[in-house]
Amino acid sequence: MDNSPMLHELTMKVRDYELDLQGIVNNSVYMNYLEHARHEFLNDVGVNFNQLHLDGYDAVVIRAEIDYKKSLRSGDEFVVKTSTRREGRLKIVFHQQIIRLADQALMVNASIFTACIHKNKPVEPIFILEKLWLI
Amino acid sequence: MDNSPMLHELTMKVRDYELDLQGIVNNSVYMNYLEHARHEFLNDVGVNFNQLHLDGYDAVVIRAEIDYKKSLRSGDEFVVKTSTRREGRLKIVFHQQIIRLADQALMVNASIFTACIHKNKPVEPIFILEKLWLI
Amino acid sequence: MDNSPMLHELTMKVRDYELDLQGIVNNSVYMNYLEHARHEFLNDVGVNFNQLHLDGYDAVVIRAEIDYKKSLRSGDEFVVKTSTRREGRLKIVFHQQIIRLADQALMVNASIFTACIHKNKPVEPIFILEKLWLI
Amino acid sequence: MDNSPMLHELTMKVRDYELDLQGIVNNSVYMNYLEHARHEFLNDVGVNFNQLHLDGYDAVVIRAEIDYKKSLRSGDEFVVKTSTRREGRLKIVFHQQIIRLADQALMVNASIFTACIHKNKPVEPIFILEKLWLI
Repeated sequence: MDNSPMLHELTMKVRDYELDLQGIVNNSVYMNYLEHARHEFLNDVGVNFNQLHLDGYDAVVIRAEIDYKKSLRSGDEFVVKTSTRREGRLKIVFHQQIIRLADQALMVNASIFTACIHKNKPVEPIFILEKLWLI
Repeated sequence: MDNSPMLHELTMKVRDYELDLQGIVNNSVYMNYLEHARHEFLNDVGVNFNQLHLDGYDAVVIRAEIDYKKSLRSGDEFVVKTSTRREGRLKIVFHQQIIRLADQALMVNASIFTACIHKNKPVEPIFILEKLWLI
Repeated sequence: MDNSPMLHELTMKVRDYELDLQGIVNNSVYMNYLEHARHEFLNDVGVNFNQLHLDGYDAVVIRAEIDYKKSLRSGDEFVVKTSTRREGRLKIVFHQQIIRLADQALMVNASIFTACIHKNKPVEPIFILEKLWLI
Repeated sequence: MDNSPMLHELTMKVRDYELDLQGIVNNSVYMNYLEHARHEFLNDVGVNFNQLHLDGYDAVVIRAEIDYKKSLRSGDEFVVKTSTRREGRLKIVFHQQIIRLADQALMVNASIFTACIHKNKPVEPIFILEKLWLI
């Protein structure tokens, strides 16, 4: 099975310290939103990012493709929708969308390519793939 | 002229608050580094990002492609190399590399696609293109 | 009336990007939590921080006293409790506590002294004081 | 000797992503500046914060007192001046000032109280005190 039917949704709200001088959420902050949503997703299926690290496995981002469509502003509520897909033997790709709740507008569309590192080498993340129904 | 001969270099150093629980610079922080290098580049050729905003023009990122090759760690010094390219009538693309000084290793390779917004519409950023010798 | 009976509570959860290399929430991030809680408090009583700024009034922090008791870690949920007090004619003091939900332990105890600036001068923030029942 | 004659200075420059919607450096960011200056100070006398952590010793902030005098803005260069003082057997206090280079104006005045934790207990940080000439 190449494509996971699992979809994770996390609702968040813009915090004023995340805005920059243009009065919009700074580009780097969307990376924070996306990362938090991925970690919550993993956590919900039983994979704790912090515990992974303590166990000697580090999930790392190796490539990010992010399309910024519209800008979130002060007070905006939004949902981060995340689905996953396996690519090759070693990669898990997270497809993520940030959607503004007020009007369901697409703010950000992203593909985040990740790998799992153990003792400085990429390893097949079997236990994560299983939890995400990608195997 | 499709490719600019101008190259900007900015040397920076990792700050410990930029590290995450894995002991490496968090992915979102590289976006900060890249943004700061772009703003310094623009500033050096006479385009001030803050003044642009006050004048009613907002330079915005519309797409980011980032390859994470290796991870910066506590104390690492690095240089951000930036060159620019025009794409179509409305876009300026910044090609950016983050290189660790100690061994000249490539940490991050990025293409940042930007547009200039005036009164909610994309406009041809003539004065920026001129300063960057892209016109 | 010197002390406001109003108490605001905001529940939040640690996000992994907020942790530093010690695996604990970085000290500066508590400032983010406290600020967000103050803005939500103000918003709930009808004072929008962003709108204040657009109207030419800037609420600014002039002094922060923060006692760090214990450290929040990955996955911790917590509540920020905020009460307010007037000090002198020009200052509003926010007393804020961050309490870990799992065991009700006190993580942070803070007093944040704020003033309201209009045209570069401190002004008596009548409309805010009224909304907070401090007048 | 109660007061150290050692004084550390670190020059930095505001980065635009550190500004908030008011166009000034966000309050929490000064905590980042102060922390980075402390770590550089320690590093310069031979105490590496990251290595400390790996060795099982965590230097932690237990109290921060910060007076915000003026606000740094886009492009401002500033110096963080840091001196240290021992307090009691277990605490090291960092006195820190942030001064804008252009006019030598005092932006921030801070006292940061720190302790050293080993196996969950505060310990007398002899080797740090020695390096800082506080013993």
